[in-house]
Amino acid sequence: MRFRLGIEYEGTEYCGWQFQAGQRTIQGEIERALLIALKEKVSVTGAGRTDSGVHARGQVAHFDSMREFECGIMERSLNGILPRDIRISEVTPTDNTFHARYSARQREYCYYITRRPSALLRRFSWFISVPLDVQVMQLAAQEIPGSKNFKSFSRTDTEVKNYNCNVNNADWLEQDSLLLFKIKADRFLYGMVRALVGTLVDIGKGKRDRSEFSGILNAENRQMAGQAAPARGLILEKVYY
Amino acid sequence: MRFRLGIEYEGTEYCGWQFQAGQRTIQGEIERALLIALKEKVSVTGAGRTDSGVHARGQVAHFDSMREFECGIMERSLNGILPRDIRISEVTPTDNTFHARYSARQREYCYYITRRPSALLRRFSWFISVPLDVQVMQLAAQEIPGSKNFKSFSRTDTEVKNYNCNVNNADWLEQDSLLLFKIKADRFLYGMVRALVGTLVDIGKGKRDRSEFSGILNAENRQMAGQAAPARGLILEKVYY
Repeated sequence: MRFRLGIEYEGTEYCGWQFQAGQRTIQGEIERALLIALKEKVSVTGAGRTDSGVHARGQVAHFDSMREFECGIMERSLNGILPRDIRISEVTPTDNTFHARYSARQREYCYYITRRPSALLRRFSWFISVPLDVQVMQLAAQEIPGSKNFKSFSRTDTEVKNYNCNVNNADWLEQDSLLLFKIKADRFLYGMVRALVGTLVDIGKGKRDRSEFSGILNAENRQMAGQAAPARGLILEKVYY
Repeated sequence: MRFRLGIEYEGTEYCGWQFQAGQRTIQGEIERALLIALKEKVSVTGAGRTDSGVHARGQVAHFDSMREFECGIMERSLNGILPRDIRISEVTPTDNTFHARYSARQREYCYYITRRPSALLRRFSWFISVPLDVQVMQLAAQEIPGSKNFKSFSRTDTEVKNYNCNVNNADWLEQDSLLLFKIKADRFLYGMVRALVGTLVDIGKGKRDRSEFSGILNAENRQMAGQAAPARGLILEKVYY
């Protein structure tokens, strides 16, 4: 029997989603909790393998188990076992054709920038005190949507062969002193959102010209893009199936 | 010379706003930071004396100093000295007639309830898993606005003589799995918002009938109202002058 999990986590204290021996990871903590709750060793597959320090509001995962249990009770058991910075919001039975990673059609990420120092959002945002030209950042972001090669915005230490992503939308939104970058695509490369945000912020600061953006994208070379924005501002918001 | 401060803080690790010898308080931390930055012992007066564990996005305070300084530099200095869960968002000179507490015309508080366990909001919300009838809670909340005696919703361990508050509005708002209580008044009594939320949640759970609410209000007796909602869900959002 296959089960689907809805998961929310604060990534601050974790070395990312993916299990690594000897490291504290989200996947590792959930597998450990399932081992206790199910008395069975299961493997959990997530929709998005978030990096160290990145958060999720709407991560989705699946696992297979032969055990019988009531989903509501399992959800409460897992939340009783897991640390408070990882919460299970959903446990539902699903058919065996569902795959958290391969069935996902789109993923949506948000990146949060604060324009004034924030005590409440300090773990979930990048504070930038210098002026940013948000209009110019938004104009550059309009070059992102479409089916394109995003190698310029991918970490180089990966074994990925295909750098093509189909981006549905990429927009900057302003709410009071909060600046939000919202991006939705069929898939994301390692470090892609943070590299895009870092580059667009350079443009917003006037360090680079808006006209450079399409050249950076077309270069298919990570050295052309800006520095990655800090992990703490990034949240995996939702996975679409 | 009088200066006005804008302050945001996460109250989790503090025994509230007000200075208490031997306790970690927001006022105590700010006065300590000012002593270092100004090399002068000053007293800081806040608009709202938030309780232990309560947060603020828009606290306002003032202090007097004879020192000369540049406000932007002072803001950065204070943020360099203060712990990261207290941030100064504004330092501005103001005239001596301004008083953070007595000049305030209205204060606005928000109380956050989550309907599913949240890792990201765990420090800023009350998680309630049982069903709540929000429509009935909103109908009861409509009894709150106006100039009334709120003794039924005040902590009893205070020396306050006047229990009258003029409430502008009190509303429940729903956003996905988040339930928000927004209340604005000229003044608040100790524990008032948390006692109101606790009572309205009892009504939403069906533990008490909506028709009881006006009776509780008119009784002017704290024992009639429900238990105080947990401090962590409460945020002082804004002070109006």
